[in-house]
Amino acid sequence: MSSVETAEEFKTRSQIDQPTETHLNGSKEFILITDHKTSKKGCNVNDFLKSGVKNIFRKKTLYKRFPILTWLPRYTRSDAIGDLIAGITVGLTVIPQGLAYSGVAGLPTQFGLYGAFMGCFVYVLLGTCKDSTIGSTAIASLMVFQFAKGVWQLAVFLTFLTGVIEILMALFRLSFIIEFVSGPVSAGFTSAVALIISTSQIKNILGVKNASGNTFLQRWISMIKDIHSIRVADSILGCSCVAILIVMRYVGRIKVGPKSNPKWHHKVATKLFWFLGVSRNAILVIVCAAVCMYLEREGKSYFRLTGFVPPGLPDFGPPPFYMEGTPANTTTGEPPVEAKNFFDMVSELGFGLLIVPLVALLENIAVCKAFAKGQPIDTTQELLTIGIANVANSFVQGYRANGGLARSAVNNASGVRTPLGNLYIGLIVIFALLFLTEFFYYIPQAVLAAIIISAVIFQLQYHVILPMWRSKRIDLIPCFVAFIACLVLPLEIGILVAIGVNLLFILYHSARPKVRLETLETQDGIKFLQLTPDRCLIFPSVEFVRNLVLKFGNKTTLPVVIDCTYIYGADYTAAKVISSLIDDFKKRNQTIIFYNLKPNVVQIFEGLNINFTLCYNTYALTQALRESESDAAIKGALESNLETGVKSSSETLNSAITVEAS
Amino acid sequence: MSSVETAEEFKTRSQIDQPTETHLNGSKEFILITDHKTSKKGCNVNDFLKSGVKNIFRKKTLYKRFPILTWLPRYTRSDAIGDLIAGITVGLTVIPQGLAYSGVAGLPTQFGLYGAFMGCFVYVLLGTCKDSTIGSTAIASLMVFQFAKGVWQLAVFLTFLTGVIEILMALFRLSFIIEFVSGPVSAGFTSAVALIISTSQIKNILGVKNASGNTFLQRWISMIKDIHSIRVADSILGCSCVAILIVMRYVGRIKVGPKSNPKWHHKVATKLFWFLGVSRNAILVIVCAAVCMYLEREGKSYFRLTGFVPPGLPDFGPPPFYMEGTPANTTTGEPPVEAKNFFDMVSELGFGLLIVPLVALLENIAVCKAFAKGQPIDTTQELLTIGIANVANSFVQGYRANGGLARSAVNNASGVRTPLGNLYIGLIVIFALLFLTEFFYYIPQAVLAAIIISAVIFQLQYHVILPMWRSKRIDLIPCFVAFIACLVLPLEIGILVAIGVNLLFILYHSARPKVRLETLETQDGIKFLQLTPDRCLIFPSVEFVRNLVLKFGNKTTLPVVIDCTYIYGADYTAAKVISSLIDDFKKRNQTIIFYNLKPNVVQIFEGLNINFTLCYNTYALTQALRESESDAAIKGALESNLETGVKSSSETLNSAITVEAS
Repeated sequence: MSSVETAEEFKTRSQIDQPTETHLNGSKEFILITDHKTSKKGCNVNDFLKSGVKNIFRKKTLYKRFPILTWLPRYTRSDAIGDLIAGITVGLTVIPQGLAYSGVAGLPTQFGLYGAFMGCFVYVLLGTCKDSTIGSTAIASLMVFQFAKGVWQLAVFLTFLTGVIEILMALFRLSFIIEFVSGPVSAGFTSAVALIISTSQIKNILGVKNASGNTFLQRWISMIKDIHSIRVADSILGCSCVAILIVMRYVGRIKVGPKSNPKWHHKVATKLFWFLGVSRNAILVIVCAAVCMYLEREGKSYFRLTGFVPPGLPDFGPPPFYMEGTPANTTTGEPPVEAKNFFDMVSELGFGLLIVPLVALLENIAVCKAFAKGQPIDTTQELLTIGIANVANSFVQGYRANGGLARSAVNNASGVRTPLGNLYIGLIVIFALLFLTEFFYYIPQAVLAAIIISAVIFQLQYHVILPMWRSKRIDLIPCFVAFIACLVLPLEIGILVAIGVNLLFILYHSARPKVRLETLETQDGIKFLQLTPDRCLIFPSVEFVRNLVLKFGNKTTLPVVIDCTYIYGADYTAAKVISSLIDDFKKRNQTIIFYNLKPNVVQIFEGLNINFTLCYNTYALTQALRESESDAAIKGALESNLETGVKSSSETLNSAITVEAS
Repeated sequence: MSSVETAEEFKTRSQIDQPTETHLNGSKEFILITDHKTSKKGCNVNDFLKSGVKNIFRKKTLYKRFPILTWLPRYTRSDAIGDLIAGITVGLTVIPQGLAYSGVAGLPTQFGLYGAFMGCFVYVLLGTCKDSTIGSTAIASLMVFQFAKGVWQLAVFLTFLTGVIEILMALFRLSFIIEFVSGPVSAGFTSAVALIISTSQIKNILGVKNASGNTFLQRWISMIKDIHSIRVADSILGCSCVAILIVMRYVGRIKVGPKSNPKWHHKVATKLFWFLGVSRNAILVIVCAAVCMYLEREGKSYFRLTGFVPPGLPDFGPPPFYMEGTPANTTTGEPPVEAKNFFDMVSELGFGLLIVPLVALLENIAVCKAFAKGQPIDTTQELLTIGIANVANSFVQGYRANGGLARSAVNNASGVRTPLGNLYIGLIVIFALLFLTEFFYYIPQAVLAAIIISAVIFQLQYHVILPMWRSKRIDLIPCFVAFIACLVLPLEIGILVAIGVNLLFILYHSARPKVRLETLETQDGIKFLQLTPDRCLIFPSVEFVRNLVLKFGNKTTLPVVIDCTYIYGADYTAAKVISSLIDDFKKRNQTIIFYNLKPNVVQIFEGLNINFTLCYNTYALTQALRESESDAAIKGALESNLETGVKSSSETLNSAITVEAS
């Protein structure tokens, strides 16, 4: 299409735009439509508190904070059936998972189940995403191991304290911090976690006792040193279990019969396969434990078993706020444990108090996003919910819990309709604690390890590399930095380093705008140099832009036009630099014109009493250029006169000015 | 003017733009015109090295690295006269300044002069700014005191090591890091430094012995505790000297006679006043020292004097790379000094190795900018020069030197023509060291303190507060954070905290774009919701934009148009999020169209095989909206049919699709 049409379309478009334009100079002013409460916060604390208090008692807020009020009144019988089926199915996944993850967290087996029911009950009341289920996850368990180092009191204390921190973060609306963890960093971190967890579980499969150390590398080194103590039976069992679980995973995806219009028996067969896949962990645990129980009663013990799990529910009570010391146990050879008070425990957790909530929220929001179906996600509410869930958990000696992707996918596929499905999961876990602990004795440790390995190997994010390469190659750097840093450094330091490196990208990005350079001509043939910076002028970038303008302005005597269409913001530093830039051009007798500078930026510049030429349309621009040209002509004539007397030019110029003045 | 004119002007403008447009789809693609060497560096190390080596041997580079090659061949007799006069004038300022600053640095008096000549000679060869003179400055001296704590070996070692770091930074073109120190932070820091230095000198004026401590607060506390040991004579002398110096500063600005056409005797008087102002420090030192010499020879010593200054030039030799320990001196009561090796010394300097070069470059560039007269500044060359100057300094036991604003202003006002003026300054300093040290004995310490105080109190940047308030209020926060942090924390930590806080602003800024929201209508009356984000989509902001689009898209059934005119960049995270956004809209059967998305961003999105509707002009947009409307009509009809059977809707829809498919 021709440019005439474009222009006409433009006219139509600008007529459309007209009603929303409030500024007469034709510049597009942006309207901030961010959360008003947040933007007010900076201005006036009183207003913020007032509106906050008012807000708490509004009906809309009540419904937002208790999503159950929205869905429960509309609850139907078919919802109830869907939730019940899903709850039972997920329950079968949660119990073996819980038992296994307690090993990742370095805690006795029962703690895996202690942390698996309170969160579910809390989520029924406060959860926003019907598919999410709250319980221990591989990442959360690893984090607990990293910071509590296998001491259950410390793990429960960490759960309580991070829960409180999450609640506070939710109240101060700090959930946005997860936005500073980019996709690549998150992918690198998740992959590293998968490798670290696999390592810790390979230890269990091989039956090697010694795999200590704070980082992935250290653990492998100590494991290889101890390779002679490998247990053959456990290794065979573990490896075959991993193989079986992976096969069953794919069995679950088998579809029987034609794609469209399947017969009823096809449907039943497909459903059966699916159920086999979904409950593969439970099936494997039941079969293996049954075999071991039989062998054990025959007096044959080939495998290392889970051992005694205390029956019954955990005691309800506040989390441990101090730890009593114990003297060295001479019979078992355990070293003595030092007594620790509240502050010792806090300082022992250190960075964990920051990293654990961050990672938990990341994981939880990933679940919500996966099943949101285009609804916006209330990250603040989710943060609040997992905070409360973890505080509740810490009162029943449970450790960290949050939404897990694999479990939630089962929930979704089982046809869950509301967060009420969580209720059944919680009840099943309680049932297991009350009646099944005797049976748990016979579960081989290698089977639990196999369950974890077959789950986490699919968390290796190798599939993001190709799209990242095709889409934006430089993003591979934070991804690999996160991956490698988390493997060679302690996990919490690794992720902080990766986030730091990624933020450097943003800072560099703000420091180095792109600038388009063109020599243009007006209708009446006045040439000018146009520079178009592509983003806002703030302190790390403005100096760069100034140097470019000076450099290219220096090479020519043409008037310079700065097209400010894309400059949507500025700061004091920018105002100072622009002010000196204008002075520089004045000293050089070169014209500099700012084209289409937004009123909010003009306001910032005017704070420094900058005196500059502004144009908001090409008509004004042409006028300004014409004026500058006639000025230049006068000056040019003067200068050509002066060039005859080379060294005395400044004196002649002075006298010329004096003549003018007198 | 009417909108018709605007449209015509636009047409003209787009015709002008035409030749530079390479993309057919009409989007404006930015052209990066940053330094090509830097941009290549990331891609190919080999190319970088090759071009680097080639570059070194190019004539242009030679002239760039040795600016003397440019100006020396054109050196004239009048240049020589100008430089000589300026050199002598500045020399008169440099000697008292050097003597005084050695006190700020906590070093014996002679070190102030040891550091004042090598830098000048280096600057003659390598300097780019004719007005800048290299020597010790108040800020540099304070930094040396902060890190070397009055041990001269450590101070010289610091000078050497930071010089090497500066040279390396220049080679790797890292001079851009000063751009991350904003105007407000720099103002806050400078003001804090002025207060800290004044404090240290008030101690000298009052004759109080004890003013130790690492921060401003601690020093004041210990000084007030020791107030009883105040020396009256020193206090009176010091205070009156400060008053005299401030008065003389203003005397220097007196202009005699009429403004235009002053008579010759007016001119001479003005010049005399000016010279009195400029050499006020030297005059005061000479007068006071002469009086003290007389009093001393009469056997009367009222004032604390500078004392013995070893005559002659310093030894030429490598800086101390280790420190021998000394046993406790029982006669003077000095504590024993531990022996230190290279690494002990490095670790003692710590953060200083990062902060000192940063602050020195900031100070030096500030000088260059002040006198650049619109020429772009070669920060890399300046960094290289001060690096070499400091390495040279460390070979004559000098401490940190860089350009100082006050001294350079005198240089400029004295009519300097080329960097050769520095040669005379250096020679005068050497002359002073050879012949004047005996006289320095009689300079009262209070006079030197008064010189410093009367200089640094004008560095208090109170005058930036009002413009900052008028221009951008939020910038007062980093300014005050820098000021207060530098006063209550150790200086180096203070400035790092302030820079960190300021960078948080940038990060927040990249995380929270502004989005304009409009309901528009095409010519044929199709309404649509248009969202215009004002900057690029990168990981901290894209989630925010997605939530806004979902939130406002959810409230309406209108098609949503994302105006991407201002989106000049994206990353992998953004591509992922946009991909899920498009999926979300597909699930909701709502149309989403991307308008004017730049080809480089399209490329990033296409890496993820995102399938989206792109429009580059309003004609295409109208077409796309028309199509979406007819689609919606069909779907709407279907849905209204389906609404009769509420719960079976999905089945009916399935059958409808099945019919279509079969």
